[in-house]
This record gives sequence, C-alpha cells and structure tokens, in this order.
Amino acid sequence: MLWAVIMAGGSGTRFWPESRQKKPKQLLNIFGRKTLLEQTFLRLKGGVPKERVLVVCQDKHAAQVRRLLKIDSRQIIGEPVGRNTAPCAVLAAATLLKKDPHAVLAFLPADHLIENQARFRKVLKTAGDLAERTGQPVTFGVRPAFPHTGFGYLEMGRCLHKGRQGLAVYHLKRFREKPGLRQARAFVKSRRFLWNSGMFVWRADQVIRTARRYHPGIYQLAQKITSGPAVRTMKTYFPKMKNISIDYAFMEPLKGKILTIPVDFGWNDLGGWQVLPEIWSADNHGNVCLGSSMLHASRGNIVSGRKRLIALVGVNDLVVVDTEDAVLVCDRRQTERIREAVQALSLRKKWHKYL
Amino acid sequence: MLWAVIMAGGSGTRFWPESRQKKPKQLLNIFGRKTLLEQTFLRLKGGVPKERVLVVCQDKHAAQVRRLLKIDSRQIIGEPVGRNTAPCAVLAAATLLKKDPHAVLAFLPADHLIENQARFRKVLKTAGDLAERTGQPVTFGVRPAFPHTGFGYLEMGRCLHKGRQGLAVYHLKRFREKPGLRQARAFVKSRRFLWNSGMFVWRADQVIRTARRYHPGIYQLAQKITSGPAVRTMKTYFPKMKNISIDYAFMEPLKGKILTIPVDFGWNDLGGWQVLPEIWSADNHGNVCLGSSMLHASRGNIVSGRKRLIALVGVNDLVVVDTEDAVLVCDRRQTERIREAVQALSLRKKWHKYL
Repeated sequence: MLWAVIMAGGSGTRFWPESRQKKPKQLLNIFGRKTLLEQTFLRLKGGVPKERVLVVCQDKHAAQVRRLLKIDSRQIIGEPVGRNTAPCAVLAAATLLKKDPHAVLAFLPADHLIENQARFRKVLKTAGDLAERTGQPVTFGVRPAFPHTGFGYLEMGRCLHKGRQGLAVYHLKRFREKPGLRQARAFVKSRRFLWNSGMFVWRADQVIRTARRYHPGIYQLAQKITSGPAVRTMKTYFPKMKNISIDYAFMEPLKGKILTIPVDFGWNDLGGWQVLPEIWSADNHGNVCLGSSMLHASRGNIVSGRKRLIALVGVNDLVVVDTEDAVLVCDRRQTERIREAVQALSLRKKWHKYL
Repeated sequence: MLWAVIMAGGSGTRFWPESRQKKPKQLLNIFGRKTLLEQTFLRLKGGVPKERVLVVCQDKHAAQVRRLLKIDSRQIIGEPVGRNTAPCAVLAAATLLKKDPHAVLAFLPADHLIENQARFRKVLKTAGDLAERTGQPVTFGVRPAFPHTGFGYLEMGRCLHKGRQGLAVYHLKRFREKPGLRQARAFVKSRRFLWNSGMFVWRADQVIRTARRYHPGIYQLAQKITSGPAVRTMKTYFPKMKNISIDYAFMEPLKGKILTIPVDFGWNDLGGWQVLPEIWSADNHGNVCLGSSMLHASRGNIVSGRKRLIALVGVNDLVVVDTEDAVLVCDRRQTERIREAVQALSLRKKWHKYL
C-alpha cells in the first residue's frame, strides 16, 4: 500500500526573518492561507488516506504539527537533532514496514509548493504502482524552466514507458550536482535534464535493504529505535546517526537502477525570497508585494509585510521583509547571503531572539 | 533688549516616517536626547532669558510646546494655518513691540542643530548689539563645507568690521537662490559666498516698518491681530495673510542694507535623512546606524530604528527607517523624493494615518 512520509525537519533560514527556529519555512503561512506543511498534507487527500501519512519533524515542533494536521501522535517521528534525510527515510521505512510489509513510501518535502493538486496525485499513483512493481526508487524530475544553479539535476536515460496523459518513465542515467551557470544552460538546452524535486517513491523493504548494504550503521540504529520504547530510544540512538542525505547515501550507490518521471504539476521549491515573482504576479514595474506597501519610483522589488506600511522610494531590486520584531533589506540577487546573516546573528547572544 | 523668536511652524516631511503631522521635525528627539525645539530653547540660556523667548508654532502643537518648554502660554503664538515665515515674523515683532519698544529680535528656526552653544551665544550677542545700533537686519551665514545645492547663498560684499575672536561683519551684496551644482562649486571656490542659515537678528520697529512699506497687507492684519482678543482674531485674520517667506518679502527689497556675519558654531539644518553622516560618525563601511541593526556585506547606508532589529544584507547607499507603524527604504541620493512619497500617501484615505 502507498504511504506518505512528509519530511518536515528543515530549518529554512532562507526565509528569515519570517522563518525562525520556532517557525521554520514549512510552518509559515505566507504562501497561502495554510502553512506549507498543511498544504503538503492536504494535497494527499484522495491519493493517500490520512491514516497512512507519517510526518518526520523536529522534536520541538511535534506538538504543533499534531495540532495543525490533527493526526495521531504515532504518526509523527520527532527528531531530537537534525541528521539530514537518509536517517529520516530509513527510520520511516523501518517504522512502516512493521505495520505493512508491502509498504510503498512516497517521500515528500513539507515545504514545497504544488499548483496542480490533481495532477500531483495522478503522478503519485503512477509512481506508487511503478515502485511497488519494480522495487526501484522512482524520482520526480521537473522540466527546467530556466538554467537554475541552485538545484541538483537528474539526467534522463532510456525511456522505459510512455503512458497516457503525457506521463513517461525514464531510467535515471545520473545525478548531477548543482551546476555552474554555463553547465546549467547546456543542461536546459539538451532537454535531457530535469530539476531534482527531492520527491521520490520507494518500497520500504528496498529502503531497508539498501540501508543495510550501504549504511549498516544507520540501518542498525533504526532497528534499535523501532524495537525499543519510542521516545527514549530516539533520544539515545538518533543522535548517533550519520548526517547524510538520501541522494548521497542511497541514490548514488544505486545509480542505473533508479527511475524518474518528468512531472508537470507546477512545482516550486520555495528556495528563498527571490522565488516570489515565480509564484505571484508583479505590478507594472516588476514589484511583487505582500501586505501594506507604497512604492514610489521603485522597480523590481519583492516586499513582504504585515500590518506596518512599507514605503519604498527610488529603490530597485530589493527584498524588503517586515515582521513583528525584525526588518530585512536585502539585494534581490544576493538572497543566498541571508543564510550568512542569520549565521552572524547566531554569534551574538543579544541577537539570539531573532533566530 | 534682545528677544528670541523661535520659528517652530514647519511640518518637516523630509524626515518621514519619523516626522509626522502630529510630530514634525522640531518635535523629534532622534537627534539627541531632547527634541530640536528644546535644544533650540536651551541653547539660548545665558544669552536670552527664558521670559524673552517667543515661540511661533502650529496651533495644534501649542499645548505640547508649552509642556516641553515650560513657558507661559502668552509666549506662544499658535498659527491656525501655515503661512511661511514673513507673517510669523511681523506678528512676532508687533507682539513684542508692545512689550518693549526697543526690542531686538533673533529669529531662530526650531529645527536646526548647533554644535558649539557658547560660540552661538557669542555670535548672537554680537549680532544683537549690531542690529540694535544700526537698525539693519543681521543675517547668519555659514562657510560652505561643500557645494550644497539645497541652500540659498549669501554673497558677501564689503567687510565692515573684523572683530576679535574671528567674528567679522560684512555687507550682504546679494541673496542667491539655490544654485545648480556647477554654480555651487563656483560659489565655494570664490570664498565670497555663505550658506543662508535662515537665522537673523533685526529690530522689531524695523521689521514693522519694512512690512508696512513692502507688504501693507501683512502689516495691517498683524496690527488687527495684536489689538484684538488673541485667539479669536488669530483665527479670523491670520489665514488671510500672504503665504511668503521673510527672504522674499523683506530681505529682497532691502538688499544693500543687510549685514551678514560668517558663523562657525557647527551648524546643520538637518535637511533630511541624508545629513545623518554629517552629524554622526560612520562605521568602517560608511554606514551610519541608530538603533538596533545588523549589517552584512553592506556599505554607505543610513539606518534609523528603534526596538526592532534592522538587518541589511548586500545593500549599499540606502536610507532605512523603521518606526512603530511604517518602514521606509529609500535611495540615499534620492531623499528629496520622500516628499513626493508623502504627497502620494495623502492621496489615499487609508494612508492618512501615516501622514
């Protein structure tokens, strides 16, 4: 049966000052009336029933996650520390395998935006069936809209199957690291590359099998955790897990045996403030504004506010974000430096309240 | 006797969003622990006694002015509408002439900054004596530090007197309008031009006499106001006054009969956010910051905040001002546009609360 594993452990400093340690990106509701986590959960409706959803999140967010999604506490795995996605995937697989030896898991980041929900469920079903039948991981690749240098790419190999409704299945030839701009351009031009969306579907028994073979440490710790009293063993063993991503830990060693489906459901990873113009329309001067703002002789700005008025006068290409206790003004082309700024905040105690 | 007339009627939109209709520039205390009005009042101490100070302000600020300065309500002239400086000067002269037929008046804007208070009082005394003896208006000119295009200039004529302590008196050859950059550069180079500080000392009887001759309308209305019951006549006659500055109304027609003293007491007219680097020192990257701020990879910015943290990331040459209900982000070289922005705010009712 198809299960969903929502990966909600991220900290999301790229949306600072809206995102904070207590309220990471997946818990923000600035991208719609509901939080990204809720949106991720709700778009499964009609595809995966509520009871077959597992959420992996930071320990400290567990109560909030349960309140938001109204799910059983046994459907939440709270991580005491961050250990990237591989330990999280193995733990989820080990947990669900006990309930359903034929479990097929859809691993879904909790902080992405998807426009066409029906299409998403259609792809999910196809991928679920495929993964169940083949035992191979099925990754979701997004046709690149432009040469993005912030994503990993999936290089498509042989076409395995061209289905109805435009859904095709390819062998995955290679994972490609985040490319430079020149290489990204070549990727886009060749039409053989897809953005790695980070979503994939895989049978639980295969996750475990792969873990045992390539990362026995993670496998053994996951076994210990799932066979002991939940909370205590988690605190004891989870921190010993290797900090490694699914891509590095399992996908790399398996290359040649991975499938990929090019998807077209209007995906956005919300990689930072700079993506807002991709999801909201700009005014005549290229400004995208959320909240109360007054722009005078200003172009190409991204503004996110709340109650306070944000007035821009004679400025271009800025990100301006106003929150209750902090204001950010950043060059729109340098949003990756917000991470550095948050790092700088962590160095001074008096600024810790803004983290 | 020397009296001081503090002209505190301005609205000061250039410091928006700190300055508002209810709290114009002269009532701001971001330039020191006390408001500019209080600073103007306090620096007279030792030069003009408290009882010989008259404040002209907007009607709606009268109560606040009285509370701040702890002066008698008869020492305040509240204007029901703004009519620039000429009506204000004539009214002050007419009022004080009734108390002291030999009154000499020092007209002082309430919203300037002066560094060397002792020097200021020294100049004031010299100018007072000179004005009393000659009956001529004595203007204060500031040696230009750079070719400012936002000031009027005083062109010095013949030197009348070179006193001790570097105080000299010149005939004023001409008033010069705000020059273009090229002309301003020539002004500075020639060393014969001074910035018009807007401060001047003049005998009350001469103010009245000049008004009667060149602007009989203003003279007559001022006579009516000072001979009737204060508040009611003010409301009736003051709005009929011509809206005109002292420079245009009286100084222009008197040219050739005006004196000027080059002053050196560290004057700043606080013409807008862009002057902050002139009065506060910048950090190693040319940023001037007031309040709580965190600057990362940012240069040449002017930041004014309060409680909230202001974070700048990868931005240069901006003015960023954070207040309780509004945030301003403006190009440092375009601060004169703040006035346009405030104008734009006045066009929409939902924004009136920010005026």
